[in-house]
Amino acid sequence: MGITLGENQYGKAENRVVRIYRDSPRHEIKDINVGTALRGDFAAAHTSGDQGNVLPTDTQKQTAYAYAKEKGIATIEQYGLDLAYHFVDGYEPVHGARIEIEEYAWERAVVDGAEHDHTWVRKGQEVRTADISVEGVGDDQRTWVVCGLKEFTILKSTGSEFHGFPVDEYTILQPTTDRVMATSLVAKWRFTTTDIDWDAVYTGVKAIIVKEFATLQSLALQQTLYAIGSAVLEAYGEIAEIRLSAPNKHHFVYDLSPFGLDNPNEVFNADDRPYGLIQASVIRDDAPDAGPAWTMQRGWMG
Amino acid sequence: MGITLGENQYGKAENRVVRIYRDSPRHEIKDINVGTALRGDFAAAHTSGDQGNVLPTDTQKQTAYAYAKEKGIATIEQYGLDLAYHFVDGYEPVHGARIEIEEYAWERAVVDGAEHDHTWVRKGQEVRTADISVEGVGDDQRTWVVCGLKEFTILKSTGSEFHGFPVDEYTILQPTTDRVMATSLVAKWRFTTTDIDWDAVYTGVKAIIVKEFATLQSLALQQTLYAIGSAVLEAYGEIAEIRLSAPNKHHFVYDLSPFGLDNPNEVFNADDRPYGLIQASVIRDDAPDAGPAWTMQRGWMG
Amino acid sequence: MGITLGENQYGKAENRVVRIYRDSPRHEIKDINVGTALRGDFAAAHTSGDQGNVLPTDTQKQTAYAYAKEKGIATIEQYGLDLAYHFVDGYEPVHGARIEIEEYAWERAVVDGAEHDHTWVRKGQEVRTADISVEGVGDDQRTWVVCGLKEFTILKSTGSEFHGFPVDEYTILQPTTDRVMATSLVAKWRFTTTDIDWDAVYTGVKAIIVKEFATLQSLALQQTLYAIGSAVLEAYGEIAEIRLSAPNKHHFVYDLSPFGLDNPNEVFNADDRPYGLIQASVIRDDAPDAGPAWTMQRGWMG
Amino acid sequence: MGITLGENQYGKAENRVVRIYRDSPRHEIKDINVGTALRGDFAAAHTSGDQGNVLPTDTQKQTAYAYAKEKGIATIEQYGLDLAYHFVDGYEPVHGARIEIEEYAWERAVVDGAEHDHTWVRKGQEVRTADISVEGVGDDQRTWVVCGLKEFTILKSTGSEFHGFPVDEYTILQPTTDRVMATSLVAKWRFTTTDIDWDAVYTGVKAIIVKEFATLQSLALQQTLYAIGSAVLEAYGEIAEIRLSAPNKHHFVYDLSPFGLDNPNEVFNADDRPYGLIQASVIRDDAPDAGPAWTMQRGWMG
Repeated sequence: MGITLGENQYGKAENRVVRIYRDSPRHEIKDINVGTALRGDFAAAHTSGDQGNVLPTDTQKQTAYAYAKEKGIATIEQYGLDLAYHFVDGYEPVHGARIEIEEYAWERAVVDGAEHDHTWVRKGQEVRTADISVEGVGDDQRTWVVCGLKEFTILKSTGSEFHGFPVDEYTILQPTTDRVMATSLVAKWRFTTTDIDWDAVYTGVKAIIVKEFATLQSLALQQTLYAIGSAVLEAYGEIAEIRLSAPNKHHFVYDLSPFGLDNPNEVFNADDRPYGLIQASVIRDDAPDAGPAWTMQRGWMG
Repeated sequence: MGITLGENQYGKAENRVVRIYRDSPRHEIKDINVGTALRGDFAAAHTSGDQGNVLPTDTQKQTAYAYAKEKGIATIEQYGLDLAYHFVDGYEPVHGARIEIEEYAWERAVVDGAEHDHTWVRKGQEVRTADISVEGVGDDQRTWVVCGLKEFTILKSTGSEFHGFPVDEYTILQPTTDRVMATSLVAKWRFTTTDIDWDAVYTGVKAIIVKEFATLQSLALQQTLYAIGSAVLEAYGEIAEIRLSAPNKHHFVYDLSPFGLDNPNEVFNADDRPYGLIQASVIRDDAPDAGPAWTMQRGWMG
Repeated sequence: MGITLGENQYGKAENRVVRIYRDSPRHEIKDINVGTALRGDFAAAHTSGDQGNVLPTDTQKQTAYAYAKEKGIATIEQYGLDLAYHFVDGYEPVHGARIEIEEYAWERAVVDGAEHDHTWVRKGQEVRTADISVEGVGDDQRTWVVCGLKEFTILKSTGSEFHGFPVDEYTILQPTTDRVMATSLVAKWRFTTTDIDWDAVYTGVKAIIVKEFATLQSLALQQTLYAIGSAVLEAYGEIAEIRLSAPNKHHFVYDLSPFGLDNPNEVFNADDRPYGLIQASVIRDDAPDAGPAWTMQRGWMG
Repeated sequence: MGITLGENQYGKAENRVVRIYRDSPRHEIKDINVGTALRGDFAAAHTSGDQGNVLPTDTQKQTAYAYAKEKGIATIEQYGLDLAYHFVDGYEPVHGARIEIEEYAWERAVVDGAEHDHTWVRKGQEVRTADISVEGVGDDQRTWVVCGLKEFTILKSTGSEFHGFPVDEYTILQPTTDRVMATSLVAKWRFTTTDIDWDAVYTGVKAIIVKEFATLQSLALQQTLYAIGSAVLEAYGEIAEIRLSAPNKHHFVYDLSPFGLDNPNEVFNADDRPYGLIQASVIRDDAPDAGPAWTMQRGWMG
């Protein structure tokens, strides 16, 4: 028939691992959501149901929890690398592993002006992500780390324009030189090495995102994304590429003229759908190939 | 037949009003979700489709946006009171109004160590709420204000016990003297007056919630809720009652013993469902009647 | 201080119980989400952390699963009654129990034109609900059963009007004699007895809802709700009251005139927010008191 | 600096278009969610904010609504192709277009045993999807159509096994020869031509999915996916590849033994997270290249 198995992978998604460090009275918390996916010599499972090579997804889950104790979660990046190497190096039929992690931030509760030792409030502001890919063993082994953030909602009440666009028979949009610009940003940046101070770079990239968004007099969301991307690449030589996906969370100036009211960009309707969606990559000319770095487990098939 | 129209109300839910104050270069933002509901002489609309008394939900929406300009949104409580009185005092068939508001907090973006004038990041930590009820006109008019918060996720990694419970034929739970306690708290407190510094009381109540949750050595979530409630009532004489609803966000100690690993409350599985749900009211003996204060628009019929 | 514990309850929410009947090769499936809540003599748990009377929420969960085997789930109503009586009659400190159940429908997979014995596809159309309340023991015991449906999305493309409404300074809505009317209906009906053929009445009420929605030339959503409600009460003498909550899922006629296109109610924008929200009760004059029938666990505090 | 703009696209996501056909008293309804994305000569928008080539996302939205009238929505595939060609052929800076559509099914309301002319109930069972990609103009123009379904929840109560898997130090899973197998399937199939009876093929592929899922004695979810995929390719020569993503919606046999109850696969806990996630492509040996067929707008960056 000429029909064959194509790309495939399997794993355990959304393991909700919480790790408390209680070595001193001042506890620490790591709160993460981990997905694992394995690629390799699994054709027989598909074609004949033979599970001889298929390390169960339940085993992958147990490993994720066990590693939270054995290796710890100093950073999600290091924990993800530990898991990926475990699967690829430890079991011959596995040729590649993908570990995807979301981290939810907590901040210490403040009681009578002081940070509390063992109570936290969920911060809620953005989700930090790490996507780890390891392919091959020994000298052929390659590793890709993509870090990022999502659900990072940012808004500026001025300093954004939109005009000069082409007009066709379906264009009724009016140009503006002053509008609200808001987005729930997804940003991911790909490293060329794993020798990174993960927390420091995360903090630094986030600061650049905020600064560029805030300070650029924006002529388009595209321009803001490119400014963010190029500033990040200029600041961090170990980042090869950054991708940004920015829904334009429309804040429409509400028409108060029927009620005899002026509305100089003061009252807005925050609309849900539809929304503009602007997506761009900014990349270094000498970036190594991306391999499977951008292929998400949950977004695998589009 | 002896069949009649019972309780009824109608309104416009989830108006997403964003108000920017731009009177100086340092802008301010209010981001709210407003619902309105009217009660009154609307029987004919139900029994014969006569809309003669029915102020359209679209009109209610327009009013919500117009008032964001005309009255402003100094606090959600004052804005809600303005809207409620407008409907009840301004239109005879309306006998009562209910305004329910959620407020989403933003914090100023920090650029090079300084707060930015017109850029904010969505804070995400909890949603502040205000539920305003006004019934009647003139001397018979009564007003209830219930303020609160929701989606306030708080966790303590020790200082929580659970033991001494009855054991029946379906009881397999083991007692513990040290567990993680976490909840996504909903708290609402009812005032006896509208002469309140709304922002100050909100900040104060939230601080008490955090302090009691953190510092009480908890024998049960019930005990924590009661401690929160009584501390709030002790601190604020103008609060008649506080209600708390606390899903017990279970963090189960993960069994690592099959892998030869000890787990002294370090690695947890954060489970989604099912969850314990603890709900309590703490009330002042001389509290005035609650009237419609606790009857939500979206939860109207259970 | 004059501060006391007010209303309170506790339980286990969202137990996801699936029951397969496999007594013959043609299996049957019941897929439900169960919440339990107990009220009673639990003050000591709040005031001093004494759990001596507090049957753990974990025990309530175990009972829900065990009863799916011991009593079975012939209907969600009978299963809910079984659970409620177990808690109230079986354990003295419990004075009242509330059981809330959602049922998800499945339909048999069709293979080569025939229904399959043990494969189903999730139906997805609406969620059937039952809310059981039992208070007291012995001769004083009272029981309330409220059945219903939710997420029942229904639309008519004509046969709906809206005009004759009052006009104030914020009214810009235009009257119409032909519009799309759509809602995601929540309907709940309260019985006066438990001697009911639950499945038959459910099917019958749903058919009335559909018929009234479809065939009434509607002058207002209020009128449609009242027509549904009174038709249900006329058909079923054992139903004392029905409550309906109907978000007006707005379908706005899209303005195609800038493109030289006519749009006689053919192309619509289905908007998310805000939405009108119409809520009404239709009640029999001799309805017994509702007691705790309408007080939901998850909507307990508004 | 050696930093350049990489891949990029922009468009309008989630246009909620509803189209009513009312040419006869028996109306028809199409209810869709449309996203558009354009690729092309847009570098200046990023690097200098120049919008001269950027057809606004608002214009894309207007076109989506206008085409619902001008071209109609006979099928989502044809409508999507119409939109894609409009953008690529009609405006020189656009080199490629991506149209992603979800369709929500409605079924006619049944009143007194007869289908109603203008009232429908949302079917809710699965979402039908079409992803259209067009690249280039004239003789170089290429078109890819991927059709599919998602949120298709299917369950079998027997006829599924899982055993023979490898055991490592983290494996505690027990093998089974009889388990519940359930998934919320995403399936997408890529065509080699646009000369297709879209509705007929959709119905046919769905029937094959159901049949293979139901009738195969499954040794692994992988085997079921491969059986589905190869059966579809065998039946439809115009389909080059099919991809399937299947979360293993775990139904865990509930342990009733502490209560002295046997549980021979009758009572299950339907768990939310984590879940196994099995993903596979089945592809024809002579499949043409996939080009951008699988690159989703919303999943663009992983």
